[in-house]
Amino acid sequence: MSSLPKFVEFHEEGPREGFQIEKQIYPLEQRVKLIEMLAESGLKQVQVGSFVNPRAVPQMADTEQLFAAIKKRPGVRYTALWLNQKGFEKALATPGVDLDGKIMFYTTDVFSIRNNNCSVAENQQRQAEWMKLYAQHNIPVETVYVMTAFGCNYQGVVPLSAVLDQFKFALDLCRGGKLPQLYLADTMGWANPESIKERIAAVRELAPAARIGLHLHDTRGLGPANFYAALEAGVDLFDSSVAGLGGCPFASHAAHTAAGNICTEDMVLMCQEMGVATGIDLDKLISASQFAEQLIGRTLNGKVMHGGNLEKYRKKAA
Amino acid sequence: MSSLPKFVEFHEEGPREGFQIEKQIYPLEQRVKLIEMLAESGLKQVQVGSFVNPRAVPQMADTEQLFAAIKKRPGVRYTALWLNQKGFEKALATPGVDLDGKIMFYTTDVFSIRNNNCSVAENQQRQAEWMKLYAQHNIPVETVYVMTAFGCNYQGVVPLSAVLDQFKFALDLCRGGKLPQLYLADTMGWANPESIKERIAAVRELAPAARIGLHLHDTRGLGPANFYAALEAGVDLFDSSVAGLGGCPFASHAAHTAAGNICTEDMVLMCQEMGVATGIDLDKLISASQFAEQLIGRTLNGKVMHGGNLEKYRKKAA
Repeated sequence: MSSLPKFVEFHEEGPREGFQIEKQIYPLEQRVKLIEMLAESGLKQVQVGSFVNPRAVPQMADTEQLFAAIKKRPGVRYTALWLNQKGFEKALATPGVDLDGKIMFYTTDVFSIRNNNCSVAENQQRQAEWMKLYAQHNIPVETVYVMTAFGCNYQGVVPLSAVLDQFKFALDLCRGGKLPQLYLADTMGWANPESIKERIAAVRELAPAARIGLHLHDTRGLGPANFYAALEAGVDLFDSSVAGLGGCPFASHAAHTAAGNICTEDMVLMCQEMGVATGIDLDKLISASQFAEQLIGRTLNGKVMHGGNLEKYRKKAA
Repeated sequence: MSSLPKFVEFHEEGPREGFQIEKQIYPLEQRVKLIEMLAESGLKQVQVGSFVNPRAVPQMADTEQLFAAIKKRPGVRYTALWLNQKGFEKALATPGVDLDGKIMFYTTDVFSIRNNNCSVAENQQRQAEWMKLYAQHNIPVETVYVMTAFGCNYQGVVPLSAVLDQFKFALDLCRGGKLPQLYLADTMGWANPESIKERIAAVRELAPAARIGLHLHDTRGLGPANFYAALEAGVDLFDSSVAGLGGCPFASHAAHTAAGNICTEDMVLMCQEMGVATGIDLDKLISASQFAEQLIGRTLNGKVMHGGNLEKYRKKAA
């Protein structure tokens, strides 16, 4: 048997990743209910929404009101995404946002420009500015993200060295402070189980003491295999989405129906079945997923919400 | 890096697994076209349909006509399923059926009775009768299947010993003849990557010289991870379905939308990305999958047909 982590932590991104990609804007109280159900299931971090340009992403225009409406559960972090200073200032001004300092790096110019309006090198300088801004507000930088860390629909294969260069730059920036978590983001679904293992090993060699996280998309059906390969490599921190919601609107996939993030409840089931603890009540999480599916009104990518929690079948049979 | 097989063989089951579960009966010429596209992609074995009671499974009533209509590709085996002597006689009488002798075993009485109308022990005696019948017709027994080899929605956990008992019985039956392939079928989606490795190791210990195959369903989202775990364990033979079609109508899942078999083209992509050969042209297979999706008229489970073959993106970027 493999030696898997004893405990795996999931950061839920469904409310942001999921709703930003939908054309329709769903009623605020329904999105509040989903967020509350997710926190109720035992998830300790839920990304509520993003503070971005409401004209570019109108689905996220009411993130402030969302934060005001949620009944918060103690011990749960309710986070948000921002991409520029204006967004950050909104997040600062919004009561109830758990501010998690993160800096984000790119590996390919084309995607960096499309998603972020500047080159890879310019973005590095911007992230240095972010470091200063976070310091001014006493927000510790917890996480370094490297986007498209496995490949990019625009530029093809991303060499490992390009990924390591970004992490090296980030680690230099963070020197003297707390060692950040190092996240590899497979933004466009290019990873495979072997490249997961290869790149995790390389990042671990670069920063043996850093905790490694993965942000995985299931764009081409390899998401669950990539998740398992990462567990085998000892990774215990993952972004994921309830019901597999999400998908990047700027990623240029073949179809709008391209799958989103790895599905939280399916991955929790995998952990449960292999004896890896998650602190999550799978039945409650499945209820949240089924609620999301009803709300959105079409069959979503999550599987165990349709197939059923094995624990229930075991109890029924016993 | 793991030591994976150099070549993996897929047996395509979409035409049977997929259409038997649909309420609608699709035009014969469309199903013929799908089967021809599948063979054209490089798949070497395609299960065309089944010879079963047309009142129980009306979708399979025209399997004879299907065989008559297919333009056959040299080097491809076009197989069929039968569950009783009447069905077998039909298969024998139908020109163009590649008869692959297989015997099938059960691990739990409830499922055996529902799917097969007799107990586990009675089924063993029936399989002994099948051995004789195959011998009379000079059909070698190629494959031994053990159904619900990981768990059962009706009886819960299936102990490993129950699986091994069936394989032992089968190997005794086959003694003196050619060693058959030993297939573990995860009929209801109970396997996880660790149980895959555990059970493969145990079957390999029982019959070190036998080739092991897996019939996997993606009922609860663990299919691709189970596939990868099996590759890690050296398995190089899989049943799968184009577009992830399928699902057993008698398996008592929570919802009709429960996923079917592991998706052929997504697993071929995984192999491609890890340097494992399959002999399959992924673009052609994706075309077949897209055709199946158009035909059935709803979004199917396959992912790479929506996300796009990475090879194309690499070429575009180069």
